[in-house]
Amino acid sequence: MQRANHQHLILPVLILFVFSLFINTEKAMSQHANETLNVIHNRSSIRHFSEQAVPSEMVETLLRAAMAAPSSRNVQPWLFYVVEDREVLIRLSEELPSARMLAHAPLAIVVCGDIQKGDPNEEQVHNWVMDCSAATQNLLLAAESLGLGTVWTGVHPYADRIATVRNALRLPAHIIPLNVIPVGYPAAHAQPKEKWDPEKVKHIRAEK
Amino acid sequence: MQRANHQHLILPVLILFVFSLFINTEKAMSQHANETLNVIHNRSSIRHFSEQAVPSEMVETLLRAAMAAPSSRNVQPWLFYVVEDREVLIRLSEELPSARMLAHAPLAIVVCGDIQKGDPNEEQVHNWVMDCSAATQNLLLAAESLGLGTVWTGVHPYADRIATVRNALRLPAHIIPLNVIPVGYPAAHAQPKEKWDPEKVKHIRAEK
Repeated sequence: MQRANHQHLILPVLILFVFSLFINTEKAMSQHANETLNVIHNRSSIRHFSEQAVPSEMVETLLRAAMAAPSSRNVQPWLFYVVEDREVLIRLSEELPSARMLAHAPLAIVVCGDIQKGDPNEEQVHNWVMDCSAATQNLLLAAESLGLGTVWTGVHPYADRIATVRNALRLPAHIIPLNVIPVGYPAAHAQPKEKWDPEKVKHIRAEK
Repeated sequence: MQRANHQHLILPVLILFVFSLFINTEKAMSQHANETLNVIHNRSSIRHFSEQAVPSEMVETLLRAAMAAPSSRNVQPWLFYVVEDREVLIRLSEELPSARMLAHAPLAIVVCGDIQKGDPNEEQVHNWVMDCSAATQNLLLAAESLGLGTVWTGVHPYADRIATVRNALRLPAHIIPLNVIPVGYPAAHAQPKEKWDPEKVKHIRAEK
């Protein structure tokens, strides 16, 4: 009789167990959906941040993700400025277009290219733009996966914006800022834009 | 007696249930690790592919991920050529440097920029490079998350490579190929490069 008291638990526990397995399997199988694809599709530009500080270990997690990007000839021509100085953030928010939110973001990461890295021939020297863009995208996705919000505010190739950031951060001449990325906890949920457009896919198949 | 037969199931089922909960929680809590960060860090360049075909729904999943990238002023200046014509793949493998693997890849995706999109002023017109690079990185990560292998073989900004791809794919003059990405199931596991370098992080904090 004493042991029989637990019998009523069998069914609910079994149901919960089977259900928990189902959740994971379902996630992996439905239309190739997985956590990474969810993060890629849920990321959107965040321009309003809460007061909550971003722990420094999280900033390192973002930078580690950024540096895991592919790099042409493995040159890794990137450099990351983590800006927490409120005066510098306010100055950038006033002098850059579309960057007002910097004044209220807990911090910003400025992704830069080092044009002294790699082969100095005319063409190869431009590869920092692709490498640093891929690194930036890793950073944005890592932030989204941690519940942080970001927005890519462009600097390169605008000469005036490059000068503004160069002066505010005292960058040497061979370091070119690609963008300024404010980082913080989102003040509100943002709906990602739907950008899928099958017209932008062309197929090249064997002619028969 | 008949019902008591199931009593021996209670403990193992409870243990399994608690264990399954633990696996998920552990994953989310350890050092900010999550599936997306794992995918970002596990991605590496894959140059050898198995014979296994890539289902067309998976290709669409990759392209949907690519088009979810951020785009300056939401111009979305990208265009994707999915190349399955073996003759074209072989031709590209012979005429492009470092692209031999194309001959044996099930397919390749050529990420292009449309320079007729967006503001035609001197500076804005270059934003397709960043937008298409971010889209490419989404594509590489989506592929990794699905167990597919890829490698970013650069085309832009090399004039000779652009001409090669333009001729092979018959691209109009305003479409510029950024890269060629072979896609397939990896023939073997590849070890990602360790690129984390704290020297590449600079801090700008308030002077006191």
